[in-house]
Amino acid sequence: MIERYTRPEMGAVWDLEMRFQKMMEVEIAVAQVQSKEKIIPSKAASAIKRKAKFNVERIHEIEKTTRHDVIAFVSNMAENVGPEGRYIHFGMTSSDVLDTALSLQVVQAYEVLKKSLHRFEKVLRRKASEHAGTLCAGRTHGMHAEPTSFGLKLSGLLVEFLRNQKRVERAIESMKIVKLSGAVGTYSAMSAKVEKGVGKLLGLKPETVATQVIPRDRHAELLQSLALLGCGLERLAVELRHLQRTEVGEAIEGFSKGQKGSSAMPHKKNPISSENITGVARLLRSYAQSALENVALWHERDISHSSVERVVFPDAFILVDYAVDRMATVVENLYVDEERMLKNIQLSQGQLFSSHVLLVLVEAGYSREEAYAKVQSLSHGLKAGESLEEALMQDPELQEKVDFRKIRKIFSGEIHRKSVQKLVKKVLK
Amino acid sequence: MIERYTRPEMGAVWDLEMRFQKMMEVEIAVAQVQSKEKIIPSKAASAIKRKAKFNVERIHEIEKTTRHDVIAFVSNMAENVGPEGRYIHFGMTSSDVLDTALSLQVVQAYEVLKKSLHRFEKVLRRKASEHAGTLCAGRTHGMHAEPTSFGLKLSGLLVEFLRNQKRVERAIESMKIVKLSGAVGTYSAMSAKVEKGVGKLLGLKPETVATQVIPRDRHAELLQSLALLGCGLERLAVELRHLQRTEVGEAIEGFSKGQKGSSAMPHKKNPISSENITGVARLLRSYAQSALENVALWHERDISHSSVERVVFPDAFILVDYAVDRMATVVENLYVDEERMLKNIQLSQGQLFSSHVLLVLVEAGYSREEAYAKVQSLSHGLKAGESLEEALMQDPELQEKVDFRKIRKIFSGEIHRKSVQKLVKKVLK
Amino acid sequence: MIERYTRPEMGAVWDLEMRFQKMMEVEIAVAQVQSKEKIIPSKAASAIKRKAKFNVERIHEIEKTTRHDVIAFVSNMAENVGPEGRYIHFGMTSSDVLDTALSLQVVQAYEVLKKSLHRFEKVLRRKASEHAGTLCAGRTHGMHAEPTSFGLKLSGLLVEFLRNQKRVERAIESMKIVKLSGAVGTYSAMSAKVEKGVGKLLGLKPETVATQVIPRDRHAELLQSLALLGCGLERLAVELRHLQRTEVGEAIEGFSKGQKGSSAMPHKKNPISSENITGVARLLRSYAQSALENVALWHERDISHSSVERVVFPDAFILVDYAVDRMATVVENLYVDEERMLKNIQLSQGQLFSSHVLLVLVEAGYSREEAYAKVQSLSHGLKAGESLEEALMQDPELQEKVDFRKIRKIFSGEIHRKSVQKLVKKVLK
Amino acid sequence: MIERYTRPEMGAVWDLEMRFQKMMEVEIAVAQVQSKEKIIPSKAASAIKRKAKFNVERIHEIEKTTRHDVIAFVSNMAENVGPEGRYIHFGMTSSDVLDTALSLQVVQAYEVLKKSLHRFEKVLRRKASEHAGTLCAGRTHGMHAEPTSFGLKLSGLLVEFLRNQKRVERAIESMKIVKLSGAVGTYSAMSAKVEKGVGKLLGLKPETVATQVIPRDRHAELLQSLALLGCGLERLAVELRHLQRTEVGEAIEGFSKGQKGSSAMPHKKNPISSENITGVARLLRSYAQSALENVALWHERDISHSSVERVVFPDAFILVDYAVDRMATVVENLYVDEERMLKNIQLSQGQLFSSHVLLVLVEAGYSREEAYAKVQSLSHGLKAGESLEEALMQDPELQEKVDFRKIRKIFSGEIHRKSVQKLVKKVLK
Repeated sequence: MIERYTRPEMGAVWDLEMRFQKMMEVEIAVAQVQSKEKIIPSKAASAIKRKAKFNVERIHEIEKTTRHDVIAFVSNMAENVGPEGRYIHFGMTSSDVLDTALSLQVVQAYEVLKKSLHRFEKVLRRKASEHAGTLCAGRTHGMHAEPTSFGLKLSGLLVEFLRNQKRVERAIESMKIVKLSGAVGTYSAMSAKVEKGVGKLLGLKPETVATQVIPRDRHAELLQSLALLGCGLERLAVELRHLQRTEVGEAIEGFSKGQKGSSAMPHKKNPISSENITGVARLLRSYAQSALENVALWHERDISHSSVERVVFPDAFILVDYAVDRMATVVENLYVDEERMLKNIQLSQGQLFSSHVLLVLVEAGYSREEAYAKVQSLSHGLKAGESLEEALMQDPELQEKVDFRKIRKIFSGEIHRKSVQKLVKKVLK
Repeated sequence: MIERYTRPEMGAVWDLEMRFQKMMEVEIAVAQVQSKEKIIPSKAASAIKRKAKFNVERIHEIEKTTRHDVIAFVSNMAENVGPEGRYIHFGMTSSDVLDTALSLQVVQAYEVLKKSLHRFEKVLRRKASEHAGTLCAGRTHGMHAEPTSFGLKLSGLLVEFLRNQKRVERAIESMKIVKLSGAVGTYSAMSAKVEKGVGKLLGLKPETVATQVIPRDRHAELLQSLALLGCGLERLAVELRHLQRTEVGEAIEGFSKGQKGSSAMPHKKNPISSENITGVARLLRSYAQSALENVALWHERDISHSSVERVVFPDAFILVDYAVDRMATVVENLYVDEERMLKNIQLSQGQLFSSHVLLVLVEAGYSREEAYAKVQSLSHGLKAGESLEEALMQDPELQEKVDFRKIRKIFSGEIHRKSVQKLVKKVLK
Repeated sequence: MIERYTRPEMGAVWDLEMRFQKMMEVEIAVAQVQSKEKIIPSKAASAIKRKAKFNVERIHEIEKTTRHDVIAFVSNMAENVGPEGRYIHFGMTSSDVLDTALSLQVVQAYEVLKKSLHRFEKVLRRKASEHAGTLCAGRTHGMHAEPTSFGLKLSGLLVEFLRNQKRVERAIESMKIVKLSGAVGTYSAMSAKVEKGVGKLLGLKPETVATQVIPRDRHAELLQSLALLGCGLERLAVELRHLQRTEVGEAIEGFSKGQKGSSAMPHKKNPISSENITGVARLLRSYAQSALENVALWHERDISHSSVERVVFPDAFILVDYAVDRMATVVENLYVDEERMLKNIQLSQGQLFSSHVLLVLVEAGYSREEAYAKVQSLSHGLKAGESLEEALMQDPELQEKVDFRKIRKIFSGEIHRKSVQKLVKKVLK
Repeated sequence: MIERYTRPEMGAVWDLEMRFQKMMEVEIAVAQVQSKEKIIPSKAASAIKRKAKFNVERIHEIEKTTRHDVIAFVSNMAENVGPEGRYIHFGMTSSDVLDTALSLQVVQAYEVLKKSLHRFEKVLRRKASEHAGTLCAGRTHGMHAEPTSFGLKLSGLLVEFLRNQKRVERAIESMKIVKLSGAVGTYSAMSAKVEKGVGKLLGLKPETVATQVIPRDRHAELLQSLALLGCGLERLAVELRHLQRTEVGEAIEGFSKGQKGSSAMPHKKNPISSENITGVARLLRSYAQSALENVALWHERDISHSSVERVVFPDAFILVDYAVDRMATVVENLYVDEERMLKNIQLSQGQLFSSHVLLVLVEAGYSREEAYAKVQSLSHGLKAGESLEEALMQDPELQEKVDFRKIRKIFSGEIHRKSVQKLVKKVLK
């Protein structure tokens, strides 16, 4: 059912067609370099380049006999090229072409993903900037703590996203690997020169030491980075789901015309995109787990990683691309209810400012414990409709000791707004 | 790329077509019972039963406007039924039909899986019986320990499989749930009577207390049981991979005519099925992890479980069915080299029998420590071509204290073979 | 830092002292049965029973030389017993005593855990009963959906808990296993009779087919069941965290005298216990993952499961016991603000009742689509202070078609309260 | 039971004592900078620096009343400092000190870990160099593939280790963060200047945008990197476990005097360290999973990450340090049986060289398919005692077409040895 979440461009990267396309690119590049190095006749290399093609159905047909998809693929290429086809895959082992082709697929997948990532960064940055000074309650434990701004929330999520993007990029760099060192990584049937040359043609670096395959720590790091990217999306998704709650109502995921929110409850506008993305994050986490178990292959490799990778590579890239894109749309169309944010800040009867009050009391000579006890007792004593500000002003003991202008300034919210706006500006510049 | 591992019958269960089919069955059953309970006109119920059908493409078309697949589905059903179509989905919430339909899909998936499970049990049981007395080295830490039989190995894996089968069955039973209690599980718009009646029609039991959905601990238990079943397959797969090693050579996965084992190394017969299944076990483990994270939905539910389940339900069932079936074929066609097994037992120069020797020495009056030291010193002193049996016989100290007939009997292997055959017979009866 | 979460009684189960204690119980039981079966002298068995003891420090001292903790333990036991000590561990392999002792530890751990489980069940049941009719908003997607009662919420969590308890119990039953079949599970040095007899003494059943160890699917099932139990606690914890939010304020975790909620914000009462338990659930999930990886040991076993189990068995039991107990206290001391619950229900201007309105409109002849559109349009048109009830009453079209008594009854909430109370009563009886 | 795996220096890092020590360092540094910035009296700062101390038991005592460990800690510090103690923790929130102190603990943990890492690198590098030309069978699917050298195997594991080391280092760099931005990360009660100054004193960089806490993606990356490091150790451990198998016998984990390998089988030398480390890798993988679930905290944070981190930070560092150190010892004391390695290479009757033969045949004019078929047929036809080399030489068809000197050179092994030695030298330089 992954189809539902497959954006076409990313889907195409993981199509069987593309897999063989990348394998063919590797085989052609190898032939070119082998010809240059006088390993195969130049006539063969140019025939291969000119006539190479494949047909997925024909490959499947051949595979029924050979039971080995790479051999089937090479046979199909060869029959299309003709007699010179016997120089295809010369001196190579299956994993040489498979792993190098996977590197190319990953690189291309990242090219596609990057568009989603850039779009997401752009809309998140814009939204953060717009709401730099949009005061709202900062909450810890789900409880009001102190005022912050919606822009600062988004800025925090933006810089986390940028960290994650960097992690993914780093992992992609670490996947730009060509491996042609043969059956057990010894270059016994292929010179390192060829590998290097092919790498140059394809934009990849030779593996330092391979086994039969490119070691799977590289692949695991990639899946880990996608999982962590997913966690960042989840953090934003959970934030928006909280803000959209009936009782909070500070933000609403876009609601397009004609859309129905629920089959039984027509009035509801639900944060379904954010919830969907929350689920996707779970999947991405689990794929990373499988990828980690792929690292300790036996000796120069067994093939147990293959069934895992046939699933987790396409699925992880498809899902992360989908989630990033969907989240970008969510942020773009997000309705932010600034009025409600201010109203919610008032809910705690001014207690949101209590930490600042503490400081003023300590400055006025109270010990920290005394100040804490004083504010706590006034706070706990507040009745409906009363506010901490008034309670402080009317406290006889405080009237003697404290400069009330400081108290008023705290409760006006301006201290918070200014420091937050400044902070967001600094982050986004 | 899950297609590669999709057996058609299981694939069909998780097809979109089947999903809507099951949803339609639920809607029809609800209408029947609601008519019996005089909640909707009997004319409506019979029209729904008679005319109900759906078309996946049309549903997608409607979904473009409604952005809600259940509403689109109901609309499509309704337009096919005509005016009485308005009684479809009467008093229901989307999750009523979705979750009950998922229950039905799971039940059907298990019907398909059961065939693979039964086939696997049969071939494993037969192989175990055949090799009840086929002596081979028992190994701990990968080192020879004491003789066992290949049939006993398989018997152990069989009884583990039977435990796992029972766990899956139990989890399936726990998933046979109808849920029609409405938006927040209060039966506010649907009587529990209707739910019970629909359950009877569909072979399901009403949920004790639902939220908007059937609580996800049931689904998690199912995925956990599939993961554990996968671990059992992995244990067998790892065993066979070990036995097939070049140096061990005790068992070989089937090798059909025309199959090529490796593109670069024509002589190799590789345990690729067992390795493939090892990888599948990793995936099954990871799906269970996601399913566990689906349990703590918010309040009466959020929809974050949905994206997870759209992926892990089909994929886990498809993969486990594939792996069980493939493993059955592996066991069926397994080549067991009994001669090599015996030859390997001799590798340790008789040391495989040392634990029995210990017992004889203790009976002869040695302290455990002395006996241990004696056997260890003789064992470590063995040169190539020598055997522990001879070394014991030639030890002057032992010649006085020990009855050598006991020693000879140990090294003949008969003690082991008999006890093992008896054990396997008892287990398989 | 697990110490922080260790309740003494559960901590004692996983103490090194207790591990050796259980091992000693196994060794003694084996000697008793072996004497009865004339395998060892009865004088030896009675000496072992009478004089057996061990000293952890002395064992560590011996281990420095032997580098094998079981051998060190047996040596220490033997030196305390004297000459007859050589009959301790007779015909056994280390795993015989280790695995059987682990079974005993698990059984004892469950005895301790059961007390927490029972306490939790009791307080949850009581709270559910108290609040059977305490109406509150049912929420899906974090949005108000329809009214439910707090008692029904708790009832749902209670029945999930009972399912989880049953799963744990089942897993414990499956762990009540004695294994004395020796080095590779063949009973080559020990009769099955002895195993059975020892099992009877210790309350355990013989393993059907063992390798050197009890197969690890049993242990994995146990860890899976604890993980699922943790997920159930997490669902309750997340529910309470939501209800305690500043804007919701429907429930508050107990707040004892002198406790300070936050070092900077004295007014806050935070759901820290529920949050703590949410974190514990994550740990329990991860332990299950490790336990699954322990299943596919090599051949008759390797020892890779050991380092995992030394950590996850104590930690999982200690944490789950801690979490269940702490959650019981949370539920016991939970402050439920019934007034606030009612007030929150009003927040949606009556839209919480819209699904019932739909039904009335359909009965009155509207098609489902028309009814949906009508209610949606009225709902979306509501201004602050207005209610859906009034809007329906004032709609000219509806005035002709609908019986307004039905509308009023819906909005009174009585339909919901009654059906919910009835439901809770049925569940809790 | 983690004690068993706790190396003292790493254990000390995660001791409660050290936690408070690091918290005290943070509080003192804050006071110094606040005094420099004229926020608190310089007299206070110097009193704090001079008199600051804490006592764990006293803190526990205070915590019984306050139920908040940071407040208890600050109170205890304050009572030791005297009247100026009220300026401790001035303008700070608990997480400011907790998270910054955790950063310091992590940095220190890495200092300890680095020693193990360096030792491991050194011994692995030395062993790889020693065995650069030690030919042994390269194996894929557990089957002999082509010759490689033991040094190349280790080189591959070394460069993977170096990649992992870099990943850990990068993650540590990303954890060198000071966070003093207060209750919701707005610097409302503390200037960014102070944060920066404290960072300078402590060797940390200010968090770009914090919530109440340092965002948990940083911590998750760290745990991910430790998990991946663990997977690398596991790959080496699995390699060694395979090589030590009775039938392979190419390498043996050190076996010190007096050590007993098994209580029932005295002759066995088991790869228990490698198995132990395999298990540790499972634990490290699972901790990463929990750490990922810690990322999406609610709003400006909830405290659910805390229970997870109290367990996984100490345990992951303690276990990874233990495993790296133990693996270093394994590699250091590893017995490599070069003779056996050569003997094993001969097991496949020369088929290990078949891929090179293929190349020669293709050069001689065979199509790839023909060459493959020829070698396969000769290989499959080999009887015991025969070799592929002879079979090739005696094939009438080949006698006409192929230069036999090329064949002989292949089977001498020199092609492989040379290319491998060269490769290892290049990697290790």
